[in-house]
Amino acid sequence: MRAEIISCGTELLLGQITDTNATYLSQSFAALGIDLYYVSQVGDNLGRIVETLQRAWQRSDLIVMTGGLGPTEDDLARESISALLGETMQIDPQLEEILRSRFANGMPERNLKQAALIPSARSLPNPIGTAPGWWVEKDAHIIVAMPGVPREMYLMWEEQAVPRLSAHTGGLIFTRILRVKGLGESSVEEQLDSLIHNSNPTVATYAKPDAVDVRITAKADTAQDAERLVAETEAQARQILGPHVFGVNKDTLESVVGLLLQGRRQTLGVMEAVTGGLLASLITNVPGSSKYFVGGIVAYSSDLAVQLGVPSEIRARHGAISEETARAMAHTARKVLNSDFGIGITGVAGPDKQEDKPVGSVYIVVEGPEGVVTGTGPGWRGSRSDNKRRAALSALDLLRRYLEGSITPT
Amino acid sequence: MRAEIISCGTELLLGQITDTNATYLSQSFAALGIDLYYVSQVGDNLGRIVETLQRAWQRSDLIVMTGGLGPTEDDLARESISALLGETMQIDPQLEEILRSRFANGMPERNLKQAALIPSARSLPNPIGTAPGWWVEKDAHIIVAMPGVPREMYLMWEEQAVPRLSAHTGGLIFTRILRVKGLGESSVEEQLDSLIHNSNPTVATYAKPDAVDVRITAKADTAQDAERLVAETEAQARQILGPHVFGVNKDTLESVVGLLLQGRRQTLGVMEAVTGGLLASLITNVPGSSKYFVGGIVAYSSDLAVQLGVPSEIRARHGAISEETARAMAHTARKVLNSDFGIGITGVAGPDKQEDKPVGSVYIVVEGPEGVVTGTGPGWRGSRSDNKRRAALSALDLLRRYLEGSITPT
Repeated sequence: MRAEIISCGTELLLGQITDTNATYLSQSFAALGIDLYYVSQVGDNLGRIVETLQRAWQRSDLIVMTGGLGPTEDDLARESISALLGETMQIDPQLEEILRSRFANGMPERNLKQAALIPSARSLPNPIGTAPGWWVEKDAHIIVAMPGVPREMYLMWEEQAVPRLSAHTGGLIFTRILRVKGLGESSVEEQLDSLIHNSNPTVATYAKPDAVDVRITAKADTAQDAERLVAETEAQARQILGPHVFGVNKDTLESVVGLLLQGRRQTLGVMEAVTGGLLASLITNVPGSSKYFVGGIVAYSSDLAVQLGVPSEIRARHGAISEETARAMAHTARKVLNSDFGIGITGVAGPDKQEDKPVGSVYIVVEGPEGVVTGTGPGWRGSRSDNKRRAALSALDLLRRYLEGSITPT
Repeated sequence: MRAEIISCGTELLLGQITDTNATYLSQSFAALGIDLYYVSQVGDNLGRIVETLQRAWQRSDLIVMTGGLGPTEDDLARESISALLGETMQIDPQLEEILRSRFANGMPERNLKQAALIPSARSLPNPIGTAPGWWVEKDAHIIVAMPGVPREMYLMWEEQAVPRLSAHTGGLIFTRILRVKGLGESSVEEQLDSLIHNSNPTVATYAKPDAVDVRITAKADTAQDAERLVAETEAQARQILGPHVFGVNKDTLESVVGLLLQGRRQTLGVMEAVTGGLLASLITNVPGSSKYFVGGIVAYSSDLAVQLGVPSEIRARHGAISEETARAMAHTARKVLNSDFGIGITGVAGPDKQEDKPVGSVYIVVEGPEGVVTGTGPGWRGSRSDNKRRAALSALDLLRRYLEGSITPT
């Protein structure tokens, strides 16, 4: 099946928004085994949208449109599809009723066109917005028209469009993402080489800012069979990647660490230098983190760390950028904050080296009830904020491995 | 002038990267007064790139391509343009010399094609990568081919392509961005209404995550005249927007606050609850921030704040989410951290309300040598991390206005 994406909206051509919908759909096509050859962005102009649709109709089996389903005169997706197919729009009474029920104080009349259909189109419900989508089948072609608002589009795509597409792509689809920390993307790819060349399930890797994602997607006649296929490959991938796998799907290091701490009914405090508050900020991005996160100290001046209990002679002897200092910071954090776990992290975020340590040098220590674990940064060469992010994620990962028991404290 | 963007790269169609280059170029076109009607993404396939180029050649005067200039067999931008124009590529000896000089240990032979030109093409130097761009003029059409790596593309576009385009867009271009905090985009647009309808300079607003940008772009026969036109409009815009303008071009609130503190040779410490470390993290994103940022305390558990000096009776009487508590936090931060300025910030990040205060309630206090200023969050309804970001930016803006003297401490 050859697919094509058409994104409608003058705001795209003015650079006011970036077409992340196309990225989202591209990933989904790859997982579904659908070949995508073209992506186009067009402005809100009937002639140009119809021209783009005509070309797509000639060369592709599946056309996925986003945007242009709003109530204004600039919203021309329905009009363009009608023009392409030579069909006339009519208001669907049932859709009109649903639409009117969404407006407490009466529907503006211009919204009525959102209840329109053509004979070849079925409506795709939109539970979180006023614009229903269109599912059009004609002459062995499919057109899916969805709203441009990303969260409305995601929901409609996953819940309405993908299940209908399954009938055309030969079976039901199930996907699961394994989240991997501590290995680069090429290393994950190399280790999973034997699985990546399979055709069902497909296995693909994606580098994300916080981890490497391994996406496992299976196709089968029933959902159960697809899930079983994914589970088998997942077991093999987990065997290969071991404790580098920290979660699935929407898990983050900070959410996983939060669940592990809550499971142990234990608390965490941090003292950070190189990450400058980012470690605490990541931890507190998790709703409910106040249950286990006691607080943090951002020790940028020397005085604060010493004042709170980091012995000045350790810094004098080993330097502020050292494992010994990180160790004292972890211990002090745990003591001052009265928490079960303490993290100390120090290093060089850049752009200049410090104490003759190069940019990207990082020392991390986690102290907990069972003892201490340590980690270092491998000397990244990114921007200052990249280095901060990598250091904070490494600290979370070190704590995660301690809590999971995949490294032994001493 | 009608323009069209073609982004080459199979990784775009697999959803592995998002086409932010198109967004960047779209914004630039808008500023230059060039009409952009189509954006296309194509994979690394000669036939499909040539087909896309042919259509663009028919309907557009200016074609801007990104990607496909690397050394591998998959990099097909040069080959596609040659095929479109029926011209043969030849290695340019001067380009070859420059290219070879970039490889300390000998150039891999496959890189040689990066020194190729066709008769209609001139080379666009790439000071930070191996791939030079192409500037092609033929039959009243222009094709600009640039690398896909964003920072290489940005530099080549701004420094090489835009000046050459000026000859075709009727004059030289000068742009300046005013950064605005404390007003929404629609309010900025409304206040600048009289300027936005001018045609030279053009004035446009863009909502960014940390501020609203006002982009002023002028066209003139000389660079000096263009700069003068921008300066006149800038003065008018500053008159209208007053102290809401906090910087220009690449300035951020954290960089501006840093410069103001350094100018006064004063220091800053923070005690944050609702922002959970993000305020300190933003401040420490600025290189050299250790010169004025003493440190921070992330007070998530009640105990830490009290232990450091926030009187427990204030919290008991007014609640943790109150101006009084923020005031005590700012005072304690300043005292404990021994800094000239202290910021205290407390509030509700969500998703649940706290102490009967709704999500998005935020109290901010800045205490400095001249006294205290206070601010509140207007009750944002974003996600938890959105609310944290807005609260941290509001705190920086409050400090900025104190340091600039546009609000008077009491």
